[in-house]
Amino acid sequence: MSMNEPDFIAALRALPLHPGARGLADDCAVLTLGTETLVITHDMMAEGTHFRPDADMADVAWKLVATNLSDLAAKGAEPVGVLLGHMLGRDDARFIEGLRAALEAFATQLLGGDTIAAAGPRALGLTAIGRATHTPVPARSGAKTGDGVWITGPVGRAMLGFEGDSDHRAAFDRPVPLLAEGRALAPVVSAMMDVSDGLLLDAFRMAEASGVSLALDPSAIPVADPARLEECIRWGDDYVLLFTAAPAAALPVPAHRIGTVTPRGPAPLLLGDTALTDSASLGYRHG
Amino acid sequence: MSMNEPDFIAALRALPLHPGARGLADDCAVLTLGTETLVITHDMMAEGTHFRPDADMADVAWKLVATNLSDLAAKGAEPVGVLLGHMLGRDDARFIEGLRAALEAFATQLLGGDTIAAAGPRALGLTAIGRATHTPVPARSGAKTGDGVWITGPVGRAMLGFEGDSDHRAAFDRPVPLLAEGRALAPVVSAMMDVSDGLLLDAFRMAEASGVSLALDPSAIPVADPARLEECIRWGDDYVLLFTAAPAAALPVPAHRIGTVTPRGPAPLLLGDTALTDSASLGYRHG
Repeated sequence: MSMNEPDFIAALRALPLHPGARGLADDCAVLTLGTETLVITHDMMAEGTHFRPDADMADVAWKLVATNLSDLAAKGAEPVGVLLGHMLGRDDARFIEGLRAALEAFATQLLGGDTIAAAGPRALGLTAIGRATHTPVPARSGAKTGDGVWITGPVGRAMLGFEGDSDHRAAFDRPVPLLAEGRALAPVVSAMMDVSDGLLLDAFRMAEASGVSLALDPSAIPVADPARLEECIRWGDDYVLLFTAAPAAALPVPAHRIGTVTPRGPAPLLLGDTALTDSASLGYRHG
Repeated sequence: MSMNEPDFIAALRALPLHPGARGLADDCAVLTLGTETLVITHDMMAEGTHFRPDADMADVAWKLVATNLSDLAAKGAEPVGVLLGHMLGRDDARFIEGLRAALEAFATQLLGGDTIAAAGPRALGLTAIGRATHTPVPARSGAKTGDGVWITGPVGRAMLGFEGDSDHRAAFDRPVPLLAEGRALAPVVSAMMDVSDGLLLDAFRMAEASGVSLALDPSAIPVADPARLEECIRWGDDYVLLFTAAPAAALPVPAHRIGTVTPRGPAPLLLGDTALTDSASLGYRHG
């Protein structure tokens, strides 16, 4: 029997889980060892699903690193190193170039990995390991009633870049993980995650993990194209940080308040007067 | 330009490498954090290359865990947890069953990972994280002239199992990482690795990493089928431990002495009187 993603993840949750797995409901695993706390994540990208068969493989390598480091950023972690699972194929020299650019840009290093030769569309994996700069490590599950809901920047830029808008091309091809922002925010936030699958879907997940509702004000959400608000808040790949913070918190970085955490109501998410109850309808495109 | 595996790995070595990467010439990365030392590895398995399209997915899951834990075993590390990179597909419920069996058998836990849907042959990745039980963590590079060369058990069983020999079927389908043996050996050995790609090829790699030659006595190598010695020592997937130790070392586990470490000669590997200089000829089948 093959399974869909929610069923498969539910089955994984019934396996022996490490306490640091956070119930498989966070961006990263958190591993405490003596006096150190590690933050660890693994993401895959597949040709045809996460990148186009004609994509510049340097961009693909960059994005593989950047998306994993964005998960570390959302936990306030400082990158230590990455392990690459690589399937050989077209333009591997370009892939190496993009990998080098990303490692250098984000001050991290290659720790190891595996290289295989196989037929068919390519699948690439990356494990990123970071060191927590603040404990407790921010979770998706910490949002509290009365907190403000914030994002660090506009959503929808990656969508416009994907469509060919040259002003936003880099947002799609070469996203930048907000490592410094995440580190600055970690001591201040009550919950934090990166927006990888679309603002609405990721906010829905934060509400679910926290057992609260998030009431968002659509007019307050910064978007790359105001005429296309509904798409901008459903499209993914922007990698801004979504967080909640107590009303009195002094934020160390610029951010936009987009809503308020409320007691758990019938819907995990409110967009203005619209109750959003079904996560399946929230993602416009999953990058 | 696409690249072959040696060229790609050479290009990776020219990237910013973490000191714990051991020059990408060992089974695992070694990460020292405060008073703890972590041992980390990542291996991929692809349908058509590492498992047959009709394989029992429970066996595939087991093997994915077991082969990664075998890398930890070769470093004397105790498993902490694993991150799974999973591409959804046929028989995912069976995959979960095999994953559970392996996690339980080897007393480890799921830490996290990623689940994707993609077309084409499946690729699966696993990152295993262990805690070193002895430092310095054994490397491939520590073999010294005069040391004995040892393996913990016969090679060729996986080959016979792959061919359908029911006595050896489990050796191929459900290999067992030698975690207890690796922990016992770690304080005693001068170099250690697991035999995943065939005894000759892996011994060649140890010789190269150590800057020595290994002189093996073919009549001393325990093999599953003596009539097929040449195949048994080239076939992979047996996951016994290959190690070197000083002549006076008291070995804590049963092992077979198969040779001696000699000063680096023209060939990294001597099989009786035969000098083996080209690693490309050593692997019979790469599992």
